[in-house]
Amino acid sequence: MNDRFAKTPQPHYYAVIFTNQLSEDDAGYAEMGAKMFELASNHPGCYGAESSRDSSGLGITVSYWKDEESIAAWKADAKHLVAQNSGIERWYSHYELRVAKVERAYQGPKGRSV
Amino acid sequence: MNDRFAKTPQPHYYAVIFTNQLSEDDAGYAEMGAKMFELASNHPGCYGAESSRDSSGLGITVSYWKDEESIAAWKADAKHLVAQNSGIERWYSHYELRVAKVERAYQGPKGRSV
Repeated sequence: MNDRFAKTPQPHYYAVIFTNQLSEDDAGYAEMGAKMFELASNHPGCYGAESSRDSSGLGITVSYWKDEESIAAWKADAKHLVAQNSGIERWYSHYELRVAKVERAYQGPKGRSV
Repeated sequence: MNDRFAKTPQPHYYAVIFTNQLSEDDAGYAEMGAKMFELASNHPGCYGAESSRDSSGLGITVSYWKDEESIAAWKADAKHLVAQNSGIERWYSHYELRVAKVERAYQGPKGRSV
């Protein structure tokens, strides 16, 4: 298991699923994305995040949270960061954000230590 | 909005979040992964799936479901497919699978029609 996986506790906890398509004009995005990821990961109540983006610019980031209150506090901070960088409409051609309560979790493959 | 995004209804519904790291030995994976994605997408009770894999082999697939019963039926079918292809231990060095109930959802950016 490498550090690209979040170290989440036993359920229940919350997941924020952010699926997004980068625009062709993505100047400044890489830096902003990294800042946002760091902001979430270090926020109180955050258990970590997992993120992948393919060569077509489709990305999925899932961050994991203790409770709704932690998500709300992070959202307020994220709004400040986005406002400072005023770019969300330009960077993303579309995004879907879903907040979900994790009820069950498994990991594998069984017997692998990696 | 392109067809890489799932067309989900108003919450509540379920999300199966599958984060996985491909092994270096991923022979046969591409075909199997595509079959699995198709199997899920066409299953009764599935609202679609979103998937991204980066150049390091870290992938996140989130499939969306009407209820727990639909997930259970799909899981049974998926087990058959995996058994026929006997490869899950070889393909993945690690995976995390989380089942979550989507409580809230948003999309954006506002005012964009793409």
